[in-house]
Amino acid sequence: MTKPPGALGLLEDAALRLAALQGRERPTLERIRICVFAADHGVAAEGVSAFPQQVTAQMIANMATGGAAISVLARDLGAEIELIDLGTVAPVPAHPAIRQAVIAAGTADLAAGPAMTGPQLHRAAGEGAEAARRAVAAGADIFIGGEMGIGNTTSAAAVACALLDAPAAALAGPGTGLDEAGVARKRGVIERALALHRVDVRDPVAALMRLGGFEIAALSGAYVTCAQQRLPILIDGFISSVAALAAVRLCLGAGDWMLLTHVSAEPGHRPVIAALQRAAAAEPMLDLGMRLGEGSGAAVAVPLLRAACALHNGMATFAEAGVATGA
Amino acid sequence: MTKPPGALGLLEDAALRLAALQGRERPTLERIRICVFAADHGVAAEGVSAFPQQVTAQMIANMATGGAAISVLARDLGAEIELIDLGTVAPVPAHPAIRQAVIAAGTADLAAGPAMTGPQLHRAAGEGAEAARRAVAAGADIFIGGEMGIGNTTSAAAVACALLDAPAAALAGPGTGLDEAGVARKRGVIERALALHRVDVRDPVAALMRLGGFEIAALSGAYVTCAQQRLPILIDGFISSVAALAAVRLCLGAGDWMLLTHVSAEPGHRPVIAALQRAAAAEPMLDLGMRLGEGSGAAVAVPLLRAACALHNGMATFAEAGVATGA
Repeated sequence: MTKPPGALGLLEDAALRLAALQGRERPTLERIRICVFAADHGVAAEGVSAFPQQVTAQMIANMATGGAAISVLARDLGAEIELIDLGTVAPVPAHPAIRQAVIAAGTADLAAGPAMTGPQLHRAAGEGAEAARRAVAAGADIFIGGEMGIGNTTSAAAVACALLDAPAAALAGPGTGLDEAGVARKRGVIERALALHRVDVRDPVAALMRLGGFEIAALSGAYVTCAQQRLPILIDGFISSVAALAAVRLCLGAGDWMLLTHVSAEPGHRPVIAALQRAAAAEPMLDLGMRLGEGSGAAVAVPLLRAACALHNGMATFAEAGVATGA
Repeated sequence: MTKPPGALGLLEDAALRLAALQGRERPTLERIRICVFAADHGVAAEGVSAFPQQVTAQMIANMATGGAAISVLARDLGAEIELIDLGTVAPVPAHPAIRQAVIAAGTADLAAGPAMTGPQLHRAAGEGAEAARRAVAAGADIFIGGEMGIGNTTSAAAVACALLDAPAAALAGPGTGLDEAGVARKRGVIERALALHRVDVRDPVAALMRLGGFEIAALSGAYVTCAQQRLPILIDGFISSVAALAAVRLCLGAGDWMLLTHVSAEPGHRPVIAALQRAAAAEPMLDLGMRLGEGSGAAVAVPLLRAACALHNGMATFAEAGVATGA
């Protein structure tokens, strides 16, 4: 290529990685599949979110009618988007864009007992796996998982604590906008849950079942299935990354199929990224201070990856262009 | 908007900044104008580049025929691109995409005397100003300046040293790929030039004339004119940022019209960015380890800014979507 070696930085790495994963000399990101999994969390009763629980159902509806950030980004990218309702407290209106896959009206309070039962976990992971299989069947070039669920940074932080054997202080953050007292309360709730469940660090199934959420388990199931089906994955922010970490613990090779996209403003994201990088998920390209979830950070990275592919596929070589290569 | 306040991070800031600069409630980046200024540098004789000087002319030809990184990115963005030949050592082939504006066959060696004469500086800055006026006349929503010139990181580092009253060690880097010995030689050349010219830190005209390049001066002229004509500017990497710093010193308000886009792998970029941020140029969004020039980093940032505009213009408000706003 007519440029000094390495001069396109992370864009070069990304294009080469995609080419390798897609098994094509010329990588392509034409068909983007975004699956947003939504569910409510019993732990919301502990006062761990800046928003009321009814917002989960309201936001699914907003995504369906095109007003949410991920809807706008999907339109902008020409991406296919699937919304999967795994169970909320408030009713979700029927809408052709929303796939009904209700497991229960949210999980149970993880600070008081297991968030879900074994069959519920199986069902949630299975819904994720099905979504991944539909993406493969639709010919997707890449898979983006998103999530929506009031209280889910608490659940994700608890799962991450269990998987990393870390204290709540290392993973709990403001989420959608808790103040300092709120974060302290959230930290206390997570500590209480960790003491109650005593999940073994080597047991990702117990971590997801006792501390997780339906949408987190669905993401983990989707990621494992994408990897098994050889479909590359873009990992979004904190919650998606925790689900990715659980997926890697369930199936080590899954990390090979993951590309991290951005560093969230949620402070717990960095230790989770560090753990994922040990499992081969490539370095995130963006650090924009985003903390929205929905898959939005991964979606924002798509144009960069498309530019990386365009450069990889479209630039002339030194020989083609008749440009000298050294002094 | 249906998201926690600030949850889109730098994308929100960028959209608001563009809206303010464009004087529109709904900012837009449809029409992108990229002007690449190319010229040779007498200082190349000092052995400060990993590539031979003939590459400048060869790369202009490669840009014209569509094989260079900036050509690929411009195509990908649907951007208009103008190539402006300000004077090279090797002949540039005639091509309808190349604008002939030859001042001389490159500058003189800045380590031995002034890089250019006063009239040459005036001419170079004027070519930049003309390019900016053409962009305005074409209805551009944003201006990107790019550059090509073997040896121009040496010239840009010397200009930055003069404008920041900093030693060569703070600004000289590997450029297109010098080894350690090469960087040391480059540092020595710059120190020699600084000692020879003794440019006053308050004299940007002397810095550009004695230490600059035709393409660097053209970029400075373009930026000042863009600001005067109220056309927002995306600043690329190290060399563009040095030209932007000179522009801000020539016309302080110019910084208001600049958006920094990326942090280059060239180590001298950070101190120049810090100085530009004091002049109101907004924070760079990307840090991809790019170090190519041509305007490529700014071009890569365009899809992010477009996503920022799409989110700003397309998302529903809490009221529109019937979503609750607080717990």
